Amino acid sequence: MTIILHDEDLAGYASMPLAIDAVEAVLLAKARGKAVSPPRHNVSFPGHGDLVFTIGGTLGEQPVAGFRVYDTFDSDEHSQIVAVWSAETGRLKGLVLGQRLGAIRTGAIGGVAIRHLSAPTARIAAVLGSGRHARTQLAAAAAVRSLDLALVYSRNEANRMAFAQEMQRDLGIEVRAAVSVSEAVGDADIVICATSSPIPVVSASDLKAGVHVTTIGPKTAKAHELALDIVGRANVIATDSREQTGAYASPFFLHGSGKEQSLVELSDIVAGRVPGRQTADEVSLFCSVGLAGTEVAVASALFDRLLEKSAGS
Amino acid sequence: MTIILHDEDLAGYASMPLAIDAVEAVLLAKARGKAVSPPRHNVSFPGHGDLVFTIGGTLGEQPVAGFRVYDTFDSDEHSQIVAVWSAETGRLKGLVLGQRLGAIRTGAIGGVAIRHLSAPTARIAAVLGSGRHARTQLAAAAAVRSLDLALVYSRNEANRMAFAQEMQRDLGIEVRAAVSVSEAVGDADIVICATSSPIPVVSASDLKAGVHVTTIGPKTAKAHELALDIVGRANVIATDSREQTGAYASPFFLHGSGKEQSLVELSDIVAGRVPGRQTADEVSLFCSVGLAGTEVAVASALFDRLLEKSAGS
Repeated sequence: MTIILHDEDLAGYASMPLAIDAVEAVLLAKARGKAVSPPRHNVSFPGHGDLVFTIGGTLGEQPVAGFRVYDTFDSDEHSQIVAVWSAETGRLKGLVLGQRLGAIRTGAIGGVAIRHLSAPTARIAAVLGSGRHARTQLAAAAAVRSLDLALVYSRNEANRMAFAQEMQRDLGIEVRAAVSVSEAVGDADIVICATSSPIPVVSASDLKAGVHVTTIGPKTAKAHELALDIVGRANVIATDSREQTGAYASPFFLHGSGKEQSLVELSDIVAGRVPGRQTADEVSLFCSVGLAGTEVAVASALFDRLLEKSAGS
Repeated sequence: MTIILHDEDLAGYASMPLAIDAVEAVLLAKARGKAVSPPRHNVSFPGHGDLVFTIGGTLGEQPVAGFRVYDTFDSDEHSQIVAVWSAETGRLKGLVLGQRLGAIRTGAIGGVAIRHLSAPTARIAAVLGSGRHARTQLAAAAAVRSLDLALVYSRNEANRMAFAQEMQRDLGIEVRAAVSVSEAVGDADIVICATSSPIPVVSASDLKAGVHVTTIGPKTAKAHELALDIVGRANVIATDSREQTGAYASPFFLHGSGKEQSLVELSDIVAGRVPGRQTADEVSLFCSVGLAGTEVAVASALFDRLLEKSAGS
């Protein structure tokens, strides 16, 4: 019987360490040429929106294949589907329906980036934005670094207060709402920018030396949540998929910055092929684009754990 | 809650009339430029196989969008997924898992072709092949024509005997196993070729005047189940997707026959834009390639009927 999971099965952040390890395994596979992760595939339904497919998986031992699909229809209700096959046995391992898995795996990608790019001594995180992705990114940061404090800023006070309260409870670390971007990021070792803003919300002068910055939100030349001077300041700039950064309809925000050639694959850093941060003062920047196949790997790891649990019970 | 159907929910042929009407509606939408049905999208997992996506739907009133995905992994177990969204509300209407829906909708496409291409007086059907598609094609033929008799031939005697017995029971018409292709098709008004044979199993000299032929199995220049003289003999040659016939890795079997230009869209015949059969003596040929969006339409109709039933109960 095919396992089918829903959002309520993935509540909380207990699956984050598993998800981070699953994503890290995909990145290692990618560095060894064993990941399948073509750019996403869109089909348009004129007047309504698109179905967008990220299809991928990993080869090698226990190969998995699958996809995530989401819609851009004009609606409050968006239902994603993730499906995973064992490429070896041809068996459909399971399906995950809903929004939660996508946020967990994007969080997990961010967690791998923070593990390999931020200063190992990082203790303070700042989060700009208070949505779903802001939550899972912070949870992932807390899974890979011993955080003492997280600060959150978003324009809506009620939202940032709710975020602080919930995340303090869920992560068991101190989480405070800041009243400005600069208050939030000023002392931060890790800055997570997870807004929907098409104009920059944070610039280099707001940040301290040695900071790691992750950008989740808009990052095209026309619309980007980070000021370009952060790109200029960064000593290391990585992404989870250079191929995807070149496949957007609008050019990637590094376009024209003179730093396009500096963009390295996070997978190559994870595999030790290219250096990451070299000193505690360097600034690192991670541009999260959503490597195809990572959803599949995270879902596959969840299914395997469920099967182990049921076999053990 | 998202409806999820499995093969056992689609047992039997009770859904065939609904499926045929749903496919006919897609073809009418296609003729009006209101169908979304791009060629299929393959992603390869080297050493294992492909995931193959047919993505599509219909615009206009109650627009639907969705996809079917199947795998070509080396396995006896193949799990297809069909998913349907209302493009209007953005709601995921439901999922269908398993093999059954694909066979029903391919049957339904064949049913529409037989409704619009075969002689209205057709009473005898022949089926070459005894697999899943052979069954649903015959069920669809029986749904649109008043059949008195069906004859089946496949190389394996046990398979053709089982087919005859089961289909006689399931369709309530006489179904007999023939001992040769020529015995099966000699008197047939409708010939359904649903084999996996890469070499022709039937040729024009086997067939009577006025016959309608449907080919479901191999139909590339290198591997095709119909002899090319049937193509030469045909007065009308239609397909459910000319675009798909041009999108195979190997050229379509009409390539080089001099009849490529005669290939018309079944949708245009259904919409009355191009003529189908003109006399009782003409030979018609339908090349079934699997128009994208038809699975989605059939699944959507099944979900709608389930919702009506549950609302009415």
